Amino acid sequence: MVGAGQLARMTSQAATGLGIGFRVLADSATDSAAQVCAGTVTGDYTSLSDLRAFAARCDVVTFDHEHVPAPHLAALEQAGRQVRPSAAALRYTQDKLAMRDRLSGLGVPCPRYATVTDQADVSKAAADWGWPIVLKAVSGGYDGRGVWVCQTPAEAAAVLAHPVRVFAEEHVGFDAELAALVAPAPGLPASRAVQAQRIALEVAGELGVTGLLAVELFSTSAGLLVNELAMRPHNSGHWTIEGARTSQFEQHLRAVLDLPLGDPRAAAPCVAMANVFGGTDPGVYARYTHVMAADPGVKLHLYGKSVRPGRKIGHVTALGDDMPGARERAVRAAAYLATGEE
Amino acid sequence: MVGAGQLARMTSQAATGLGIGFRVLADSATDSAAQVCAGTVTGDYTSLSDLRAFAARCDVVTFDHEHVPAPHLAALEQAGRQVRPSAAALRYTQDKLAMRDRLSGLGVPCPRYATVTDQADVSKAAADWGWPIVLKAVSGGYDGRGVWVCQTPAEAAAVLAHPVRVFAEEHVGFDAELAALVAPAPGLPASRAVQAQRIALEVAGELGVTGLLAVELFSTSAGLLVNELAMRPHNSGHWTIEGARTSQFEQHLRAVLDLPLGDPRAAAPCVAMANVFGGTDPGVYARYTHVMAADPGVKLHLYGKSVRPGRKIGHVTALGDDMPGARERAVRAAAYLATGEE
Repeated sequence: MVGAGQLARMTSQAATGLGIGFRVLADSATDSAAQVCAGTVTGDYTSLSDLRAFAARCDVVTFDHEHVPAPHLAALEQAGRQVRPSAAALRYTQDKLAMRDRLSGLGVPCPRYATVTDQADVSKAAADWGWPIVLKAVSGGYDGRGVWVCQTPAEAAAVLAHPVRVFAEEHVGFDAELAALVAPAPGLPASRAVQAQRIALEVAGELGVTGLLAVELFSTSAGLLVNELAMRPHNSGHWTIEGARTSQFEQHLRAVLDLPLGDPRAAAPCVAMANVFGGTDPGVYARYTHVMAADPGVKLHLYGKSVRPGRKIGHVTALGDDMPGARERAVRAAAYLATGEE
Repeated sequence: MVGAGQLARMTSQAATGLGIGFRVLADSATDSAAQVCAGTVTGDYTSLSDLRAFAARCDVVTFDHEHVPAPHLAALEQAGRQVRPSAAALRYTQDKLAMRDRLSGLGVPCPRYATVTDQADVSKAAADWGWPIVLKAVSGGYDGRGVWVCQTPAEAAAVLAHPVRVFAEEHVGFDAELAALVAPAPGLPASRAVQAQRIALEVAGELGVTGLLAVELFSTSAGLLVNELAMRPHNSGHWTIEGARTSQFEQHLRAVLDLPLGDPRAAAPCVAMANVFGGTDPGVYARYTHVMAADPGVKLHLYGKSVRPGRKIGHVTALGDDMPGARERAVRAAAYLATGEE
C-alpha cells in the first residue's frame, strides 16, 4: 500500500489476520502505519524510482490516498506491475473535472459545474446558479482542502488568484451527506438508499474500479447528487471494523488480491462511529481510562498521530440496539477523548 | 510482549487498534509476530541482559509464553520493571508441581498426583490409580509436549530415563476439555459452567494473576478437575476476535496496562473455532480462494508460519445461529486449508 496513514494502519490489521504479507511506502517512520507495520519502506510517493523499487517487492500495489502522480501509475502498469485500482480508474479520483465529465456522460446525477478560468466565468456561473459558488481544485484536494465556498465575487477572485487550477460548482443545499458504504443511513428513505447503491454500482462498473469505492453523495430535496469519489477504504466505513462481519479494510485487500469477498452483514443491530479530533491538551491517552470505565462497549481507535487542535487522530465505534443510543455513546466518548469534557 | 508467536501477533492487532505502542522480543525476524510488528526486537528470552534491554524500552512487560526463566522475572521486578502477570503468579505456569500443590491447598479439584523419582514411585502410584499413568515434566512443557501417557511400567521407565524432572498424575477419563474462557460450552450443564467459572476466579484471585488467565479443565463423571493454567491469551479464546465485543487479546492488553476491561459479550448467537494444521502440501494460501468462495462468512487467520505436517499454522472462526452449523463450517474450512480436501 502506497501511503502509511490511518487507512494503511487499519488495512495492516486485516492483512495480519489473513496472513497476507503487507508493506507500506511511508513518508517517514513516524507515519501512522509505519509505527506498527514491520513491512515499512520509507520513500517518496512522488518519486518514480521510489515507487518502482517499492512495487518490485509487491505482488499487488494499492493505495492509502489518491496523490500518486498519474504518469507514475501508468509507468508502473507499463512495467507490468499490478496496480489496483488501475491507473485508468484512479484518474477519476485525481482529476475532479474529468470525474464530473465522465459521471455526467453516464447520466449519474451531479451538481451543476463549469470550467472557469477567470472572474467573468465565475460571474456567468453565478448568474445561473446564484451565490454562493463552490470553487474546487481540479486535483490535489482532500478532506475539505481544495474546496472553497465563495459567498461573493471578491472571495472568488481571491481563490482565482491562487496558482491552482479550479472549476466551479453550484452550492448544493443538502439534508444529509451519504456514502454508498453506509447506505441505508438512519432515516434515509428506502428508495433513496436503493438509488445511492445503484449510482455507486454504476460508477464502480463504468469506471472499472477494483477494490473499495466510496461514493460521497449529497441527499437534497431534489434527489441525490454525487459529491466525491474515493477508491480506497474511507472514513465513512470505519464502523465496519467491529460493525460488520468483514471490515472494509479486509474487503479491500480481498478485492485487490482477487480473492472472494467476505460476508458484509452487520454484526449488531445498530452501529455508530464518531471521529476523534485533537484538542488543546495532547494527553489523549490519559483519558483512555475514563472512557473505557464509562462505557466498556465503546471501541477505541487511535492512529498514533501527534495531537494538534482539529486534527483527526482516531475514531470510536459503539454497537447497540438503538441508533440514537449508539450515536450518543460514540459522540460522547469521542468528545471526551478530545477535550476531557463530556 | 516477550515472545513473538501467534499470540503476540494477534495481540499486536489489538494494540494497533488501541493506539498502544507495542514491542515484541522475538527469537528471529521470521517469527509470527515479528513478520508484522514494527516494534520487533530480536533477542534471547533466556538471556537476562537481552530481557533487561527489552524491558527498559517498555512501560509494562507481558508474555506470549511461560518459558522466561523465573530468576530473570524476579530480577526484572527487582529492577523496578512492571512485569504482568507478576513473577509470583507466573511461577504456577512454569512449575506444574508447585501449581498442583498450591491449587490442592486451596481445595481446587485436581487430578491425583505424586512426586516420583524412580520406577518404584511410579509403581506405587499405579497401584493406587491403575494404568495408564500420566508423567508430566515439572517445567518446560507446552502444547502436549512434556506429557507422557504411559500404558505400562516399561513406557514409564523410558520416560524416567529422560533427564527431565517429572511427576505422576492419574489418567483422567473425561467427557470434555473446557477452558474457563469458553464456559458455558455447548452441552455443558449450567451448574458445571458456573463451577468452572468459580474455580477460574478463585485461581485468578488466589494466585494474583493480572491479565488473561486460561484454566484448562477436564469435565469428568466425577466433576471438574483442573488440568493446566496459562497466564496469557490462549488458543481456546481465539474465537473472541470476531465472536466477542472485546477480544481476549485486547482484554489482556487492557488488564496488564491497568485499563478498564471491555464489553465481553458475544457478537453472535453461536461461534465456532477450528485450528488449521499444516499438511503435506505447503501451498495453503493457494486454497484461500476456494475457502473464501465456499463460505464468505468464515474468518481466516494464518500466522505466517511455514507449513509442516501437524504444525498449528492458523485458525478459522465461523459465526452463526446454530452451533452444529457453525462448527461444521469451521471444521470444513480448516480441513480444506490443511489438505485441499473436504
